[in-house]
Amino acid sequence: MSKKPENHREDVAGRANVEDTPELLAYYNELDAMDAGALWTVANKIEPWEPKSTSIPVIWRYAGLREHVLRSVDLVTPEKAGRRVVYFNNPGRTDVAAAVGWLYSGLQVMNPGETASAHRHSATAVRFIIEGSGAYTVVDGHKMNLGANDFVLTPNGTWHEHGVAADGTPCIWQDGLDIPLMNALEANFYEVHPELQQAVGYEVDDMTKTWGNPGLLPSGDEWQKPYSPMYKYEWAPTYEALSRYASTTDGSPFDGVMMEYVNPVDGGSVTKTLGASMQMLRPGEHTKAHRHTGSYLYHVTKGSGHSIINGQRFDWKEHDIFCVPSWAWHEHANASDREDACLFCLNDLPVMRSLGIYREQAFGENGGHQPSSDALTSRKDK
Amino acid sequence: MSKKPENHREDVAGRANVEDTPELLAYYNELDAMDAGALWTVANKIEPWEPKSTSIPVIWRYAGLREHVLRSVDLVTPEKAGRRVVYFNNPGRTDVAAAVGWLYSGLQVMNPGETASAHRHSATAVRFIIEGSGAYTVVDGHKMNLGANDFVLTPNGTWHEHGVAADGTPCIWQDGLDIPLMNALEANFYEVHPELQQAVGYEVDDMTKTWGNPGLLPSGDEWQKPYSPMYKYEWAPTYEALSRYASTTDGSPFDGVMMEYVNPVDGGSVTKTLGASMQMLRPGEHTKAHRHTGSYLYHVTKGSGHSIINGQRFDWKEHDIFCVPSWAWHEHANASDREDACLFCLNDLPVMRSLGIYREQAFGENGGHQPSSDALTSRKDK
Amino acid sequence: MSKKPENHREDVAGRANVEDTPELLAYYNELDAMDAGALWTVANKIEPWEPKSTSIPVIWRYAGLREHVLRSVDLVTPEKAGRRVVYFNNPGRTDVAAAVGWLYSGLQVMNPGETASAHRHSATAVRFIIEGSGAYTVVDGHKMNLGANDFVLTPNGTWHEHGVAADGTPCIWQDGLDIPLMNALEANFYEVHPELQQAVGYEVDDMTKTWGNPGLLPSGDEWQKPYSPMYKYEWAPTYEALSRYASTTDGSPFDGVMMEYVNPVDGGSVTKTLGASMQMLRPGEHTKAHRHTGSYLYHVTKGSGHSIINGQRFDWKEHDIFCVPSWAWHEHANASDREDACLFCLNDLPVMRSLGIYREQAFGENGGHQPSSDALTSRKDK
Amino acid sequence: MSKKPENHREDVAGRANVEDTPELLAYYNELDAMDAGALWTVANKIEPWEPKSTSIPVIWRYAGLREHVLRSVDLVTPEKAGRRVVYFNNPGRTDVAAAVGWLYSGLQVMNPGETASAHRHSATAVRFIIEGSGAYTVVDGHKMNLGANDFVLTPNGTWHEHGVAADGTPCIWQDGLDIPLMNALEANFYEVHPELQQAVGYEVDDMTKTWGNPGLLPSGDEWQKPYSPMYKYEWAPTYEALSRYASTTDGSPFDGVMMEYVNPVDGGSVTKTLGASMQMLRPGEHTKAHRHTGSYLYHVTKGSGHSIINGQRFDWKEHDIFCVPSWAWHEHANASDREDACLFCLNDLPVMRSLGIYREQAFGENGGHQPSSDALTSRKDK
Ligand SMILES: [Fe+2]
Ligand SMILES: [Fe+2]
Ligand SMILES: [Fe+2]
Ligand SMILES: [Fe+2]
Ligand SMILES: [Fe+2]
Ligand SMILES: [Fe+2]
Ligand SMILES: [Fe+2]
Ligand SMILES: [Fe+2]
Repeated sequence: MSKKPENHREDVAGRANVEDTPELLAYYNELDAMDAGALWTVANKIEPWEPKSTSIPVIWRYAGLREHVLRSVDLVTPEKAGRRVVYFNNPGRTDVAAAVGWLYSGLQVMNPGETASAHRHSATAVRFIIEGSGAYTVVDGHKMNLGANDFVLTPNGTWHEHGVAADGTPCIWQDGLDIPLMNALEANFYEVHPELQQAVGYEVDDMTKTWGNPGLLPSGDEWQKPYSPMYKYEWAPTYEALSRYASTTDGSPFDGVMMEYVNPVDGGSVTKTLGASMQMLRPGEHTKAHRHTGSYLYHVTKGSGHSIINGQRFDWKEHDIFCVPSWAWHEHANASDREDACLFCLNDLPVMRSLGIYREQAFGENGGHQPSSDALTSRKDK
Repeated sequence: MSKKPENHREDVAGRANVEDTPELLAYYNELDAMDAGALWTVANKIEPWEPKSTSIPVIWRYAGLREHVLRSVDLVTPEKAGRRVVYFNNPGRTDVAAAVGWLYSGLQVMNPGETASAHRHSATAVRFIIEGSGAYTVVDGHKMNLGANDFVLTPNGTWHEHGVAADGTPCIWQDGLDIPLMNALEANFYEVHPELQQAVGYEVDDMTKTWGNPGLLPSGDEWQKPYSPMYKYEWAPTYEALSRYASTTDGSPFDGVMMEYVNPVDGGSVTKTLGASMQMLRPGEHTKAHRHTGSYLYHVTKGSGHSIINGQRFDWKEHDIFCVPSWAWHEHANASDREDACLFCLNDLPVMRSLGIYREQAFGENGGHQPSSDALTSRKDK
Repeated sequence: MSKKPENHREDVAGRANVEDTPELLAYYNELDAMDAGALWTVANKIEPWEPKSTSIPVIWRYAGLREHVLRSVDLVTPEKAGRRVVYFNNPGRTDVAAAVGWLYSGLQVMNPGETASAHRHSATAVRFIIEGSGAYTVVDGHKMNLGANDFVLTPNGTWHEHGVAADGTPCIWQDGLDIPLMNALEANFYEVHPELQQAVGYEVDDMTKTWGNPGLLPSGDEWQKPYSPMYKYEWAPTYEALSRYASTTDGSPFDGVMMEYVNPVDGGSVTKTLGASMQMLRPGEHTKAHRHTGSYLYHVTKGSGHSIINGQRFDWKEHDIFCVPSWAWHEHANASDREDACLFCLNDLPVMRSLGIYREQAFGENGGHQPSSDALTSRKDK
Repeated sequence: MSKKPENHREDVAGRANVEDTPELLAYYNELDAMDAGALWTVANKIEPWEPKSTSIPVIWRYAGLREHVLRSVDLVTPEKAGRRVVYFNNPGRTDVAAAVGWLYSGLQVMNPGETASAHRHSATAVRFIIEGSGAYTVVDGHKMNLGANDFVLTPNGTWHEHGVAADGTPCIWQDGLDIPLMNALEANFYEVHPELQQAVGYEVDDMTKTWGNPGLLPSGDEWQKPYSPMYKYEWAPTYEALSRYASTTDGSPFDGVMMEYVNPVDGGSVTKTLGASMQMLRPGEHTKAHRHTGSYLYHVTKGSGHSIINGQRFDWKEHDIFCVPSWAWHEHANASDREDACLFCLNDLPVMRSLGIYREQAFGENGGHQPSSDALTSRKDK
């Protein structure tokens, strides 16, 4: 064995602190030859005191990316590209095509009259519409017409395809998937639809009309699948709900007025791996800082402001996308004293909850606010 | 022992069929003296082939009852009466003050400026508003303003009180409770609020605004109680939901377009014992007959039509109330070819489901329709 | 209307207290003709301050009943009687053939070589074996051999039949069913097996061997039915479990060392309506008094002692059966300073829990013990 | 950007197949500078047709490792090493100290009189005892004495420590943890007990005696934590359970007679992330091949035989440890015609199930058996 063996020592009671000796190094070599190692050389590394994410906070500015996304229409055909998507590469996670943690995301564009081929996979996908008219998605035979800020599900195992009506305009939306997680868990399957296109078997938007009603469910219709049947969550009723809730709640000190998109059948997360929320920062609101496990990808839905993430300030406006890695301190501020600002957030909270590993901590000092530099210092703006 | 002992014989293999003999009669007397009996004398009675409800189908006509309800305002004070309620007595269940099965129901009236004293009980209550303005209910400190056809919960154990604002009008609503069931199960407790009136601790209608939103729940607010936090289900969004659903479903052959009021936190029934639904009979719709276990009390919310229950026809119009006993055949017809009709239904389905005893059967003959007499033959109209 | 109308007045704020007047009596008559009534005349009756059971505490002594049970063998054939059972009649509940509350129970006898015909019903049944050898039960094709103090389930909807092997001895067991509850809920169906006898399709005792193992379940075998697949709970491992648990617990002040029979698939009650427990009173143990909702039927499995129920003392010994009605104070005492005593208890706790109406209270005075007369004063022994 | 961009083309309808052009390469460079990329260059890589594990099948032979484990006693003190563990390094996963997939495992040794310091972490741990007497584990104040083949839990967040009694012998056990998964999910916290040692607050082995009983749970003791309170699963009752079940089941064609260790409170997996099973290969049994998602680490508990994993044969005997990576074909054979063989298996099935990504496939050809070389060809034996 030529490579220098690792040894992560800490001088703390209960932690490994073994000095390398010739005898031990020889021993390590013997173990290595047996596909084994000495735990005390790596214990402090693999059992850290607290999580330190390999992802870094990043903001992707829609203003700059938009033209690149649109250029892809000229550069590649949908037939050859499959999908024309500019995806986000977190500088700390380039090995897995992730925007943050185990979340993949990108901006997809489609021209009027185009359709993508139908397929399905173990990865769960969501879509958040940015601009354009005429976009639609078909999920297991249910077609949905999509407008700006609509949130759409294509859960694990569902046949899905997208398109833009011939009389529409070029449409751009954000895709979010748990592809990196499914690959990491070695459970990702992919299948192309045998007929490349699926038949629409129901009224358009039937699932939202059937399942998206306040305090009412269709009688006798037992939905057994492990994800929400309400495939589309439209923006107008979402904003109205947020406004209604805002009129009667103090909100959270860390998140303002925040609602979670849920499966109406059981009140749980929309899928087993991806969750999502929409939050409103009221005029002038600046939340306190906290941190928690899980990976979070924000999409600025309305208004402008800034977030401070691990002490670094990120200014944002409509359709900018930024991430908060696991266990990173973060707080949000609305720039306006008159208008509310809204943040959509895609996350892996369902995984954190299912596995019992969600943990949260408030920032205790400085009145709950991180000290931060005034100027925007994000890597993208250097 | 002087009373003649029972003996329910059936000449069917596997059923009891023992003839009384002097020796056996003497034996029965001996058992009786020991607080015991011979099963074969009663087995066929206590193990019937199928349920036969002791309740009978009844319709209570609002037109006739309304004046009696209003008269109670002059006859008794709220202080002395507690509540001014005319309750429904099913002729087959007068021993337990039940409208059908184990469901209590009645019509309550309250004048402007009146308030009832706060109390709580193991019985779960719901309210369905009929007429008047200014009515309100307070449940565990949450105040709700009520309008026509709103549906309100005061679940098991919650402090509750009702009133009508001083600038309102006389208000009438239908109460529904599981009082008979709670008494039968010997689990009914009653408590008067120590201060006779409870403080309102929240914004008016906060619970509906917080929990009554389509596909969205407040983030981080974990509701653990065994009933819906959405105490009030308003009529306007309910009718809108029904209309949306109607636009995309074929409906049920037995119930038309039917939705169940649910607990948004888990998609289950609104309380552990009382459930409720609202159904729309589309213009010209006449459903097929079926029967199921459980007791059902309908309130005609909109339109007119008739129902056939165990072969007997009941014509109904707005605010009439009628019942369908357990395992009774029933079908519904909208009288109009132009307008929809809506039926609210209070039931004990949550009990049937929790105990695993819900059962359903379609009427197989005659195209799914019961043979019935043309004329209205209800007991109340003889 | 000839009968005198009820009027249950209470002079307490928040309770009904309306004097009968000629005008009101006339009003009541009018309401009565409309299948209606005035709530304030009955409100205090139907909304009691706390439950008052219609059942009374009773003990059925095995010594006296045993000979009557055995006599039934000579008096009736199984073909004519269906089942030879002497059932318990609670003096307060004779209308529904109940031992206590909504629980039916009786003692059944069967001679060697006899078999009962197979049938099924909505009522859930359990069996607790008292004496004899060769008894067996078949449940949905699974045959079980039964010995003294074994506990057996025949849940709602399962085909079942009993018998005694030709080389056995006369067998006596206690049946327990929720027949009264199923009838009250108007959900009881009964069916005779088309072939009067079902085929045994599995190894004898397969379900207990498959599901009755500590901390282990068959891999990949997903049991979806709403009751325990472990149809038989044998006495030997039950007593061993109780002894193991007793070696490490202080036990409950009210119940000594008590374990609940559970569905190993989900840890819940054995059926949706009937629950059961076995408890050990350690040598010299005298528990404190408490009361709770639900109906309880005890079977003395081992030892002797006494219970005090609502102030009345009941001395018991092996195979005596006694009941504790809902909300009745009770405490138990082991008569021996050397041997433990064991009480099997059949109850409707699953109903109380499902419907959210279980409530419990400790006896606060007199060191937790009810004042009681020294002598046995039970009705059966006067 | 100097590195050559990836481009994973496939000539299949619905898959990406875009040729690199100078224009596109320039475009990719521009995207890269914005922390972005073109999906079509990596789509086929990140959306594979089916999982291909990075782990490879490995067997770790106890005979060879045992002496190395024992040597660590002389090489390092427990104070300096924390724990003396030789851990398994899957050659495909050395970056994360994993035996297979996201599972860490190793062999730990402790001498009589030694104790490890108490600590807790988000990673869930289990232990499977191999040899020695006097070993014990303390979990949240509950002490357990451990013997060969006992299975012990120290779930996420519980304080735990190990030791060997002064009058014991050197003890070796296998540790299994989800450390790699907790790190990958960026949710791993570590804490040393403030007093380095925790107090024992209960009778020894109280949790197994309380919760490890067949079909019985302590009455009224509501366990709410998300893991099994039965911290120790002893070998004797486990083998007895397996034998009982074997006497009445045909077993699985793929796994012989297999039982899962479960949480007796809800019948679910023992922890939220790690599951475990014990299976018996009956004399002469050779199972059919199948594959499924999830990572599996086997410990030969009894007997000898071989497994064929992805066509490669691995002969095993007592205390050997081998792994089956996700979606790898595998089948097992008992070498003996007279004795049964038993395999303990640690896995991440709870994760697969919680996230809805468990999938299974039978090997369809060749009578269900993989073609394989006769000779042992494992990497370790070259
Ligand atoms: Fe897709
Ligand atoms: Fe946050
Ligand atoms: Fe009330
Ligand atoms: Fe119906
Ligand atoms: Fe029966
Ligand atoms: Fe009790
Ligand atoms: Fe540890
Ligand atoms: Fe397998």
